[in-house]
Amino acid sequence: MDYRKLRINARRLKRTLEEMAKIGATPGGGVHRLALSPEDRQTRRRFVSWLRELHLEVIIDEMGNIFGKRTGKSPRLPAVMAGSHMDSQPYGGRFDGMYGVLGALEALRTLHENKIETERPVIIVNWTNEEGSRFPPAMMGSGVWAGKLKKAWAFARADARGKTFGEELKKIGFQGRVPAKKWPLQCYFELHIEQGPILEKKRKTIGVPKGIVGLRWGDIYVSGTSNQVGPTPMRGRNDALCAAAEMIVRVKQLPASMGGNMVATVGEIQNFPNSRNIIPGKTRFTVDLRSWDDVLTRRAWERLERDFRKIAAARGCTLKCEEIWNVPHTVFSEQLAEMIRETSACLGYSRLSMVSGAGHDASYISQVAPTAMIFVPSIGGRSHVEVENTKWEDCAAGANVLFHCLLAEALRK
Amino acid sequence: MDYRKLRINARRLKRTLEEMAKIGATPGGGVHRLALSPEDRQTRRRFVSWLRELHLEVIIDEMGNIFGKRTGKSPRLPAVMAGSHMDSQPYGGRFDGMYGVLGALEALRTLHENKIETERPVIIVNWTNEEGSRFPPAMMGSGVWAGKLKKAWAFARADARGKTFGEELKKIGFQGRVPAKKWPLQCYFELHIEQGPILEKKRKTIGVPKGIVGLRWGDIYVSGTSNQVGPTPMRGRNDALCAAAEMIVRVKQLPASMGGNMVATVGEIQNFPNSRNIIPGKTRFTVDLRSWDDVLTRRAWERLERDFRKIAAARGCTLKCEEIWNVPHTVFSEQLAEMIRETSACLGYSRLSMVSGAGHDASYISQVAPTAMIFVPSIGGRSHVEVENTKWEDCAAGANVLFHCLLAEALRK
Repeated sequence: MDYRKLRINARRLKRTLEEMAKIGATPGGGVHRLALSPEDRQTRRRFVSWLRELHLEVIIDEMGNIFGKRTGKSPRLPAVMAGSHMDSQPYGGRFDGMYGVLGALEALRTLHENKIETERPVIIVNWTNEEGSRFPPAMMGSGVWAGKLKKAWAFARADARGKTFGEELKKIGFQGRVPAKKWPLQCYFELHIEQGPILEKKRKTIGVPKGIVGLRWGDIYVSGTSNQVGPTPMRGRNDALCAAAEMIVRVKQLPASMGGNMVATVGEIQNFPNSRNIIPGKTRFTVDLRSWDDVLTRRAWERLERDFRKIAAARGCTLKCEEIWNVPHTVFSEQLAEMIRETSACLGYSRLSMVSGAGHDASYISQVAPTAMIFVPSIGGRSHVEVENTKWEDCAAGANVLFHCLLAEALRK
Repeated sequence: MDYRKLRINARRLKRTLEEMAKIGATPGGGVHRLALSPEDRQTRRRFVSWLRELHLEVIIDEMGNIFGKRTGKSPRLPAVMAGSHMDSQPYGGRFDGMYGVLGALEALRTLHENKIETERPVIIVNWTNEEGSRFPPAMMGSGVWAGKLKKAWAFARADARGKTFGEELKKIGFQGRVPAKKWPLQCYFELHIEQGPILEKKRKTIGVPKGIVGLRWGDIYVSGTSNQVGPTPMRGRNDALCAAAEMIVRVKQLPASMGGNMVATVGEIQNFPNSRNIIPGKTRFTVDLRSWDDVLTRRAWERLERDFRKIAAARGCTLKCEEIWNVPHTVFSEQLAEMIRETSACLGYSRLSMVSGAGHDASYISQVAPTAMIFVPSIGGRSHVEVENTKWEDCAAGANVLFHCLLAEALRK
């Protein structure tokens, strides 16, 4: 059998993606499927039933990570793994995460229907709580599995209503008994939508990231003095929101002044008491800094802290800057990246070497096994929103690249 | 009997204020008693029971405004009225509104225990939904009573959860049968805390406002493009929160550039989807402009609209500016103000002519009857916050001035 002629079933992949997109579907065409929500449970159940149809060994670990294992001729050899996550952002898109899981499922289905016996086991994985929207931080399931986060700490993370990750995982019935602990891997592939505009702009089908940018997350707390709006003269006000607004403008200006390929964003703001006729007394906002250059990210954070202190002092406000997450840039396996480029070329897809601006489970896994990612274009570069979209033919292209890379690695003795 | 020697009972006033402050009390020492909430119902019941103890005729109108009427020798003569409101801001203070109602109650109790028969009826009033925090706009009960707002429109106003004013008024059992419609008044007095720093700064006990500043409320909607933070380059972003932040900075700068005694505030902001790693796609914020000079307020609003349009265009965002409320400045009765100054002088209290920066029910009532207000100092100028406070001796001073003004007007043939 000439494996090179094999292709995944594009129609089946589309059907599978569409079926999953019904769970937690939003009116705007996206999905709302926060980690460990009833909708997350529903996707997990559907996923497990599909794994069982392929007679895979289903393994659920303590973190709720779900693995489907297809054995090989040499079951003791380190396995080849592929997957991503099924949880979504609030009112997020249908492809983020899910495409990587169902693309891997399609690859396994293709192995299965062609009765291909591989040398090594092939494993498909759904990592728990990649988004971190409900239980920050992100990438918790893969982080614990890779030994980079503590399980007890992860279990104690709480959502906005005070429910903990541990409670909620138990409640949806997906806390397994198997320890969430890495095992030896031959390699890990993660197929994903680009979530940015570059592939579309450069008219390329397959993106091959050399790694993931480094990231710093900050929480900024500004405190001023609440007061009735009307009778309080402008002079002598300590308006927390005004100070925060100046800081947000500063964040936007930062990348241009620092140079390098940095992005800086304020995505979230809370204001207290947030009443039309009360001078804001407390404002909290977030800062997200990303760059391939970790030194630049550190310097940018330090500069922001200095600037924020000056603004707060000038506005009679007090300030607390908390760095809550700091991840250096991730370097993927150059060998695997080369294999992805070559496979794409053989399949006739245009390709582009790039950098991933978003974090992925691949980041933690790359610290314990050779890892690479395969990107496909996002229409209009939109992601984490309901209109997130990717052409079906690009979905098929990415899954074909994944299939052939998985197969090549799984055939290795 | 020489009425000039009479004084209200300062200890009883304190006790009454303290008892009411228990209802909806917050940990920070304030009260949370939104209009038509269960806490509002509780204060209303307590208030009505106190009115009945004085054998007053209790009248509840369709808007839930509560009147306690003490008749006079000439019951057909236009009455003298005093009062304020008992609803509070979210996590607001114990004195705002309540002091004016219970100060009037104390004045009536003093009339009662001294068995003073007045010529004209004396009426105490609690106006419904003065704050407008739950059901915007503010001053709804007095607005409908004065014929300046429509009852049906007021009933249809909804809170953030979609409950209407009409439903909720019925639910708490305070929708009366008497039409909410003005009747002839001799005059209306409203006793209130200053809610600003001026009396304290100038070491005066009684403030006599010549009127209330004019006010414009705007709702500003900025729309950009939501997107994943990491993979979206800075160039080409349409970040709604960044644009809004620039606009908020502009609002703060406005009063200095316009001149006059204007204040300009952004008290409230909502951001969507408000997630740390998503570029904000929609941001809404409020603008509150106040000045004695109505032309200046109009020009300021126009200038803001122009500036906002420029900022939005430069940031690739679309903009909607809605003016939702526009109240010209209110002029109180100069004769009544003079009476308040003289009464204060006779009682030995220092006094200051000023302007009210905050709106009050007195604003609507002044459009249908001679009206004046009596202010007492706010400690640290703080109001609409839990730490809002006024010295007990200042509370007593204000109530004494109110008592003597009420009495003098009620004795008039």
